[in-house]
Amino acid sequence: MIPWIFSPLQRSHAGGEELNRGSIVPCHECPERADFITAALRDQGFAEPLAPRDHGEQPLLACHDADFVAFLKTAYADWRASGREGSALPFTFPASGGMARRPMTPQNSIFARLGHYCFDVGTPIVGGTWEAAYWSAQTALTGADLLAEGVPLAFALCRPPGHHAGRGYYGGYCFFNNAALAAESLRQAGHAKVAILDVDYHHGNGTQDIFWQRGDVFYGSIHAEPLTDFPYFCGYADETGAGDGAGATLNLPLPRGTDWQGYQPALEQMLAATKAHGATALVVSLGVDTWYGDPISGFALQTEDFAAMGQHLALLGLPTLVVMEGGYAVADVGKNVANVLRGLEP
Amino acid sequence: MIPWIFSPLQRSHAGGEELNRGSIVPCHECPERADFITAALRDQGFAEPLAPRDHGEQPLLACHDADFVAFLKTAYADWRASGREGSALPFTFPASGGMARRPMTPQNSIFARLGHYCFDVGTPIVGGTWEAAYWSAQTALTGADLLAEGVPLAFALCRPPGHHAGRGYYGGYCFFNNAALAAESLRQAGHAKVAILDVDYHHGNGTQDIFWQRGDVFYGSIHAEPLTDFPYFCGYADETGAGDGAGATLNLPLPRGTDWQGYQPALEQMLAATKAHGATALVVSLGVDTWYGDPISGFALQTEDFAAMGQHLALLGLPTLVVMEGGYAVADVGKNVANVLRGLEP
Ligand SMILES: [Zn+2]
Ligand SMILES: [Zn+2]
Repeated sequence: MIPWIFSPLQRSHAGGEELNRGSIVPCHECPERADFITAALRDQGFAEPLAPRDHGEQPLLACHDADFVAFLKTAYADWRASGREGSALPFTFPASGGMARRPMTPQNSIFARLGHYCFDVGTPIVGGTWEAAYWSAQTALTGADLLAEGVPLAFALCRPPGHHAGRGYYGGYCFFNNAALAAESLRQAGHAKVAILDVDYHHGNGTQDIFWQRGDVFYGSIHAEPLTDFPYFCGYADETGAGDGAGATLNLPLPRGTDWQGYQPALEQMLAATKAHGATALVVSLGVDTWYGDPISGFALQTEDFAAMGQHLALLGLPTLVVMEGGYAVADVGKNVANVLRGLEP
Repeated sequence: MIPWIFSPLQRSHAGGEELNRGSIVPCHECPERADFITAALRDQGFAEPLAPRDHGEQPLLACHDADFVAFLKTAYADWRASGREGSALPFTFPASGGMARRPMTPQNSIFARLGHYCFDVGTPIVGGTWEAAYWSAQTALTGADLLAEGVPLAFALCRPPGHHAGRGYYGGYCFFNNAALAAESLRQAGHAKVAILDVDYHHGNGTQDIFWQRGDVFYGSIHAEPLTDFPYFCGYADETGAGDGAGATLNLPLPRGTDWQGYQPALEQMLAATKAHGATALVVSLGVDTWYGDPISGFALQTEDFAAMGQHLALLGLPTLVVMEGGYAVADVGKNVANVLRGLEP
């Protein structure tokens, strides 16, 4: 039986609408995603989810700046206090080639702070965002606890997802970097080296940034070519880490249309690099937006390929925490998740 | 008679809608702004406008990066080629605290390039944007020509405006920095020192960035406190230039609600600093969004105060080119512009 963790409080974030590639559309990252995964796991005979333990805010600071956490906590109240209703979205950003990045203070307009801390117009903040993001992070931390306690395989149904969130920024539907928090927790529990393998369709820019200069946490990612796909500005093959982290980042971008035949060799390459790194615990950033039917993505994996993916990951023979990232074809998202978990089972 | 310059081609940019402080609204910066100014100048007995001379693209490169100019030229065609309709708007940006700023290539998604070169979600690009921005820049360059030819005072009815556009970025309704291009042209015409005085409600971040390290072009600006107002990330009093430009930038932010009584001392301080700099030609970045009735701004200048503003600027006794920037209460914008010009008349 694979234990898994989820809190209904993670449903509190419901962003409404986002600006996506020129159009205002309903948020792809909706609470119903968690419901579909929950339903699929029940169908497949999984037990009821464990409730996340409350670790407080302190562990968040291992991967996020204190000013960023403080900003997220009051962002929606500040938005309302400025006279606005609806979702809090930034509309202006510090131009990367020009304007200074100053420290933000509570005296700065909420519009300045949103643009400073966020990198897109697709990640609305609403009244329930803090609660949902907080419990999503606790769900990941609880998953790490289980591994530290000897459980070989666990699933953290994190939602909202996390891999696009950096130390001091949010975006791409992500607020706290759940996978990074879990990896950091495993490090602190005694694993000298931990690996995060990211199989979401999109590059996990936030995870990469957080561990960019660290050699103790390996970050490997297979994702869509950033020349054509979000997050566009990183995830290129020549990004391999820096300083102590030189060589501990591996990016394997693949072209749109990639199916299992194209995916499997990249996965094998990533597993070999993970072995070479010497991690003793594994965090999988699991996005199932690589599925052929995903509405915002362009790979062509079939439902049965996700079982094969799980079987490949199991070959590492490491204690493994699977952390939920993306996957937006809501009705089918759960079956693909269940297949990965079944494939990972010893 | 004050000569002025305008081309109807500058009307070609009509952005449709923008995302402004959380809401999708019709673009504040619309072609009708130019019509209202034209009508007001006719009412006040001004002659018909001169057509801008065509200086080609070469002078744009004095203030803008070649890759940026090339991007703007094909941006809308690239947007359409990617299958999109409507206005081209970015939706994701390189996070200022993390993601690398890579050089953009034509192979990069149009969404990457929009987010790389633009700093907000309020500046749509449409089919006519290049033509309008190009001719707006030519209008400013023609104004500089007139001064070089001995005209003491001229008005460039630039639209779209320019002062938020930097060397390699656009935004804030601005594409090319018309005032910067005019100042650079005056420098090349033999003025060893030129001053740009920016009286728009908003800080001219683009102009500041372009001349940040140059001592030969003084940039002075009176604008709304950036803690509360766009462009939020710069325009603070402690920003005074760097390198050769140390001390050649003067920012005088004023609180919301400022009326002429609060404005006049700042204007006098800016004029004194301009004299001390020793410029022999003046470019005025004229925004009349300081008017009490402006729909997106918060100062409280009255229509007659604009005549007083012109009279103060005239005290410098310099050849003066007035370049149009913002001002969004369309029906009244023209009267305020005419008052500044009349006040400047010897
Ligand atoms: Zn994804
Ligand atoms: Zn303005």
